[in-house]
Amino acid sequence: MNTAILLLSCPDKPGLVAELTNFITYNNGNITYLDQYVDHTEGIFFMRMEWTLDRFLIAPEKISEYFMTLYAQKHQMEFKLFFTDRKPRMALFVSKLSHCLYDILARYTAGEWNVEIPLIISNHEMLRPAAERFGIPFHVFEITKENKAEMEAREMQLLKENDIDFIVLARYMQIISEDMIAAYPNNIINIHHSFLPAFVGAKPYHAAYARGVKLIGATSHYVTADLDAGPIIDQDVTRITHKDTVEDLVTKGKDLEKIVLSHAVQKHIEHKILAFKNKTVIFN
Amino acid sequence: MNTAILLLSCPDKPGLVAELTNFITYNNGNITYLDQYVDHTEGIFFMRMEWTLDRFLIAPEKISEYFMTLYAQKHQMEFKLFFTDRKPRMALFVSKLSHCLYDILARYTAGEWNVEIPLIISNHEMLRPAAERFGIPFHVFEITKENKAEMEAREMQLLKENDIDFIVLARYMQIISEDMIAAYPNNIINIHHSFLPAFVGAKPYHAAYARGVKLIGATSHYVTADLDAGPIIDQDVTRITHKDTVEDLVTKGKDLEKIVLSHAVQKHIEHKILAFKNKTVIFN
Amino acid sequence: MNTAILLLSCPDKPGLVAELTNFITYNNGNITYLDQYVDHTEGIFFMRMEWTLDRFLIAPEKISEYFMTLYAQKHQMEFKLFFTDRKPRMALFVSKLSHCLYDILARYTAGEWNVEIPLIISNHEMLRPAAERFGIPFHVFEITKENKAEMEAREMQLLKENDIDFIVLARYMQIISEDMIAAYPNNIINIHHSFLPAFVGAKPYHAAYARGVKLIGATSHYVTADLDAGPIIDQDVTRITHKDTVEDLVTKGKDLEKIVLSHAVQKHIEHKILAFKNKTVIFN
Amino acid sequence: MNTAILLLSCPDKPGLVAELTNFITYNNGNITYLDQYVDHTEGIFFMRMEWTLDRFLIAPEKISEYFMTLYAQKHQMEFKLFFTDRKPRMALFVSKLSHCLYDILARYTAGEWNVEIPLIISNHEMLRPAAERFGIPFHVFEITKENKAEMEAREMQLLKENDIDFIVLARYMQIISEDMIAAYPNNIINIHHSFLPAFVGAKPYHAAYARGVKLIGATSHYVTADLDAGPIIDQDVTRITHKDTVEDLVTKGKDLEKIVLSHAVQKHIEHKILAFKNKTVIFN
Repeated sequence: MNTAILLLSCPDKPGLVAELTNFITYNNGNITYLDQYVDHTEGIFFMRMEWTLDRFLIAPEKISEYFMTLYAQKHQMEFKLFFTDRKPRMALFVSKLSHCLYDILARYTAGEWNVEIPLIISNHEMLRPAAERFGIPFHVFEITKENKAEMEAREMQLLKENDIDFIVLARYMQIISEDMIAAYPNNIINIHHSFLPAFVGAKPYHAAYARGVKLIGATSHYVTADLDAGPIIDQDVTRITHKDTVEDLVTKGKDLEKIVLSHAVQKHIEHKILAFKNKTVIFN
Repeated sequence: MNTAILLLSCPDKPGLVAELTNFITYNNGNITYLDQYVDHTEGIFFMRMEWTLDRFLIAPEKISEYFMTLYAQKHQMEFKLFFTDRKPRMALFVSKLSHCLYDILARYTAGEWNVEIPLIISNHEMLRPAAERFGIPFHVFEITKENKAEMEAREMQLLKENDIDFIVLARYMQIISEDMIAAYPNNIINIHHSFLPAFVGAKPYHAAYARGVKLIGATSHYVTADLDAGPIIDQDVTRITHKDTVEDLVTKGKDLEKIVLSHAVQKHIEHKILAFKNKTVIFN
Repeated sequence: MNTAILLLSCPDKPGLVAELTNFITYNNGNITYLDQYVDHTEGIFFMRMEWTLDRFLIAPEKISEYFMTLYAQKHQMEFKLFFTDRKPRMALFVSKLSHCLYDILARYTAGEWNVEIPLIISNHEMLRPAAERFGIPFHVFEITKENKAEMEAREMQLLKENDIDFIVLARYMQIISEDMIAAYPNNIINIHHSFLPAFVGAKPYHAAYARGVKLIGATSHYVTADLDAGPIIDQDVTRITHKDTVEDLVTKGKDLEKIVLSHAVQKHIEHKILAFKNKTVIFN
Repeated sequence: MNTAILLLSCPDKPGLVAELTNFITYNNGNITYLDQYVDHTEGIFFMRMEWTLDRFLIAPEKISEYFMTLYAQKHQMEFKLFFTDRKPRMALFVSKLSHCLYDILARYTAGEWNVEIPLIISNHEMLRPAAERFGIPFHVFEITKENKAEMEAREMQLLKENDIDFIVLARYMQIISEDMIAAYPNNIINIHHSFLPAFVGAKPYHAAYARGVKLIGATSHYVTADLDAGPIIDQDVTRITHKDTVEDLVTKGKDLEKIVLSHAVQKHIEHKILAFKNKTVIFN
């Protein structure tokens, strides 16, 4: 059953919840999900609302215009509107490690996610067999310092042709250029193999081992121009001991990484994440 | 600053959120907290709303009557109304173990909780020095099979005289009679030293050791007539290994117990728990 | 590099560690792993020792005999001897849910485990495509009440032909008969979708939802003749709230199940589990 | 019953475990605890051994000399010897926050720890009533930039007079000078209110809030001359959401801090920590 999902933020003021829920109810929509939150420090109101469309008086293709006219301009709102009968289209970027890739494809193949994955992009041939097992086109762009601009332009062309909504970097070991980030604002999800902001950058497990931490972690976040510094979506940790070698950390970390990344992807697919400044509001 | 807190549940229907938030906004209240939740399986709407009273048009002592007349009867609501300038009054019941008692008194003394603790009740003398350290009256009722009815009657008299709102069983090793439970419905909080429903009843750490579990837990819950079967408020676990003896489980469990109990007490003091049937809605 | 692994238990007595480590050192073995543990309650000594074989004076095929003669009989030891150049052979049993299957096959295909998986057995056709993606023979035995004995006999024949060492029930929804359990003592690993001993038997997520728990769990254990009562290998939990439906519990539980099962399988493959009575000693 | 505890490290070589356990067994000691670990990367052997003294042939006051002569010099060992009938003496340093102080005193008063706490030192008067509740002498040294050297000299004099073995900084908000650190190497335990190495230095909860992390943590560690960079003993985290304010982080963090600090203190009291370079080996 098709429903509409509205994600919005605006300066807080009294009466917003009543006004916005009345918009749905008065127009014969049945609200199936409602959650709101006020950041009292910033004075910002956040809301996620989902409602049925079968008897809703405003045609789906007109809702955005009506909402802009009647509410968004008046309240200086930023908003996004989604429909559940439009599956988001996701591109997977991978390099050599397969654990996040398999975790995502297993969920996808089992039908757990309302998403389409029309293609996988890599800078290596190594995971082609994995992609082929699941029948998903696999495109290799071998990026070097010299050809990076050209290769990314071709990648972006391919993403465009495939009508891609968002990108998941499943342990993709290449820094994404600012152009591509700008083209997909808060639509590129990365998994970093540490509990950020600790151990930014390369080889975080080696750094964790050297520091002698008793917990290792993983962090999923939206990619911004600052390396490993974008809005955090999810984090988790697992306990380690002095007995664990760097290789043990890598092995234990893989389980964290794939779960923390898949949770972020799921929330993104469900349109339950609102990025604001450098943070996220995660509805549940 | 005095605020009002409304906790309510009723059969779900469209427009409730707008109607109820308008009640506050139209009468010059400023909503500082709003959270609602619909149990779609049961068709029940739950809400917690908090608002400022300084310019609110309805006098505090009249709000309950007005709300009953205007909304509660119409929508078959159950509701509770609290004011933050009225500190809840809590009675602590203890036996021989001090860890939960100290944890609660440390928070209380540090001013972390908006609560009054006018008395501590015990079935043993052992913890009198602990109570005296914090200057809280300590009453001993040595309960036996024979005198249980009489002793509990005297306890209830004492609770009444002290205007007690709710009771916390901080590892109190006596079963509370149905009369007392009936006098404080969903107002008696217990800590059970297992992750319920596993290991109901006596000696759960011995049972956990015998079963060879790899996690031990603690559960805070409201007391009902069914032993260890009331609505669960909070639970947590910690990892153990084959190396842990029963004594180790007891030691590790104490940290779980005190934190899980104190979290439940805090939520109760903040009026963020709504018990419905045999479950809890926990607002955050 | 081939190493030998010795797992043993015996009544505790002074000098065992010295005697057993000297056996390796005096015979030119280099101990690469040593861990021991005394259960002082039971008076039992447990040890896991691993050593290099390249200069070891006793030929691999003779070690078991020598050890039996020189130490095991004298100290009433039970012991198992493994060699790392002999990959354990594992049979996977599945029904309709794919998450545990994919998690295991992803690790297997990536070469993370020193194991062979020569076949997958199911009571349904549904997961044949998943098995075929990874090129592993898939055998269906549609078990009914009437044909159960015969079908299991044929399964056991197939297991024997494939020289299977141990079985993993990856959400296999059939109760294993006592004959098969007896044929693979402490060599059948199951994943149960609750934190045992809570919610034994069918539909644990429904039971957890009905009870209103705040944590759900998963438990991997060796299968014994008592349903869901065998030695526990690993357990984990995740936090849920009143907002989670039964379907949410199922979804969240899947991530627990696959990780908790795979951790148990990994420990089993590494010969780091010693089952004693109804518990496990897990070396790390 | 008095037992001896030996903590040692040395370059790894074959036969060490046998040689060292034989030392105890041959001299009529009964080993009640044995754990060893080899760091194969560094090539270092670590061991903790505990044994009974009632029939041990070497007098307690001679053990250290004998062990040095017979083993330590030969194997370039560093070792520490403790006796359980000698209670370690601990000094508590506090400032204005009481939660860690109360947690420690509650355990101490309940007799959970084999320790003496002869005094509490503070740079403020604020927690004097807390100390007096438990009957422990409370000494205030109001440290300023100008008088720091003199005040610390007087503190160290007081520590010496009280025969203090180790110091616990229970949210003590003063940087310890290098002289004091040098006087108590790996004997000053601090609690830092973040998961190190993230958020080193002042106001970590504010920094965590600003970064938008989804987990906050606490870290107990030995104090070295580098701020918040000493060997980590224990860490833990708790989940937060976008709804949590800085004040919420502070409140939630307190529970982490007190538990993580007390766990570290307990391990230290039990002589189960071996600091090596900038890491810890934690025996369990």
